[in-house]
Amino acid sequence: MELNVNTLKINSKKVCDKIEFFIKEKVKELNRQGIVIGLSGGIDSAVVAYLVVNAVGNKNVLALLMPERDSSPDSIKDAKLVAKNLGIETKVIDLKKPLASLGVYNTITAKFLKKGFVVRGLYKGFEKISGNPFYKGLEGTENKYLAQGNAFYKIKHRLRMITLYYYSEQKNYLVAGCCNKTEFLTGFFVKYGDSAADIMPINQLYKTQVRQIADYLKVPEKIIKKAPSPDLIPGIVDEFVLGIDYERLDIILYGLENKMSFKEIAKQLNVTEKKVKYFNEIIKKSKHMRELPYEPN
Amino acid sequence: MELNVNTLKINSKKVCDKIEFFIKEKVKELNRQGIVIGLSGGIDSAVVAYLVVNAVGNKNVLALLMPERDSSPDSIKDAKLVAKNLGIETKVIDLKKPLASLGVYNTITAKFLKKGFVVRGLYKGFEKISGNPFYKGLEGTENKYLAQGNAFYKIKHRLRMITLYYYSEQKNYLVAGCCNKTEFLTGFFVKYGDSAADIMPINQLYKTQVRQIADYLKVPEKIIKKAPSPDLIPGIVDEFVLGIDYERLDIILYGLENKMSFKEIAKQLNVTEKKVKYFNEIIKKSKHMRELPYEPN
Repeated sequence: MELNVNTLKINSKKVCDKIEFFIKEKVKELNRQGIVIGLSGGIDSAVVAYLVVNAVGNKNVLALLMPERDSSPDSIKDAKLVAKNLGIETKVIDLKKPLASLGVYNTITAKFLKKGFVVRGLYKGFEKISGNPFYKGLEGTENKYLAQGNAFYKIKHRLRMITLYYYSEQKNYLVAGCCNKTEFLTGFFVKYGDSAADIMPINQLYKTQVRQIADYLKVPEKIIKKAPSPDLIPGIVDEFVLGIDYERLDIILYGLENKMSFKEIAKQLNVTEKKVKYFNEIIKKSKHMRELPYEPN
Repeated sequence: MELNVNTLKINSKKVCDKIEFFIKEKVKELNRQGIVIGLSGGIDSAVVAYLVVNAVGNKNVLALLMPERDSSPDSIKDAKLVAKNLGIETKVIDLKKPLASLGVYNTITAKFLKKGFVVRGLYKGFEKISGNPFYKGLEGTENKYLAQGNAFYKIKHRLRMITLYYYSEQKNYLVAGCCNKTEFLTGFFVKYGDSAADIMPINQLYKTQVRQIADYLKVPEKIIKKAPSPDLIPGIVDEFVLGIDYERLDIILYGLENKMSFKEIAKQLNVTEKKVKYFNEIIKKSKHMRELPYEPN
């Protein structure tokens, strides 16, 4: 199999039609009146917003904007731009107070994690001494500060999730999640946080495929072009954590999914075999995050 | 097949041994140092506490007690009794403030849902006019007050879940959930609330089987005997909502699971066929709550 720039090309119209049909069906099947979505200002939630509006109409979509202490001010601006273009109702729910009352900003780690350049320095330093923090976060870590850092950003995603459900249930709406396949396979999401929703419209599309349909759906260029970021810890953007650009990562994942050898993938993409193996390990370590809770059998 | 008092009898020692082995294995497999559990004061979380302590030792278990405005004062007393008997560390995290800052106590519905007898009256009244509120809650409802009531109690369970994760991640512990099979099949749990955990030790035991192993594990009699309640809305206890006692419900579910006809189950248990059909519907309506988010395929 040859891996190149065309490997992950999709027919955007066909894909969007299918997803929109799926959304419409699920709203009907589960007896709901519309859809709640969290708009982060990023490309994934923007794409899902366009898809749900196409599926059920802009009058039946509510978008929540949920900033907290560490959110970038640009995020809310970009989220509002999406909502305005689509003509959907928005509510801004500031999560700073509930997070503060849960003590989330009080740990030593939380006090440090405020400035981007400091955070990146800590991350790189930690990587040298104890291994990649993202990887360590997936497999469990005894390092107190890293564990605190994990808890610190994960509760933010989870609080967003429960806020989405709180509003969705009041309106008898569904919650649409915004995970994509790249995040899903690499565990680059929060278990019971952004991965928790009633429907997950773009979970079968790699990040680079989400970009393709973003173009087709006419998502504002500004949003398509900006560096993807979970917007939970200043300075921490996706490609910094993952250690590779999405173009190559997606093809590595595709190669692994299609049972190509590490060697073959590495050769074709001109990356080290070690890199390919690393992502294969990441897929394994994050397996429990993609499954229902374990039970004895 | 004959349904009688022996139908769901289990060998408690064998079952507990298996569950404890499972717990130990998962802690090792996921590279964690212990287990976090939420103690409600009820039998399910008490049983799980005994099992996890047997599996990993009381020094490696943290119990969170998470009261809020509407919790019964007895709950915390009973939870503390369990923790004391087992010698496990507890933390009391009051969720009133975060819930208040999310606006949860502000809706009209929330203001009404304070007194048990008022709540039961509203529930029964609603049942007459619009159908069973629990059932309506499963299938989605356009009734504003019922929808508000749903949102009101569900966010409490979800906030407990994210609090458990917040502490588990700081200590590199697993979260053990306390759902049982009766709750799981009937949707008598909160999606991404109490059903969200890393491991679910008693999810394959019916409520009446949980009672059997509670005896075996020597859970305090006071806790085994008290009426099961989600403790989220005053006056709302399990059997009031489900409309039947657990002894018969478990056997109905067992009969349905084993593909017995509605008629046969009804006859053997001396309940109406309508009742059996109702629980069969409940199983279907709650299906989405037992699955991963839906995706287009």
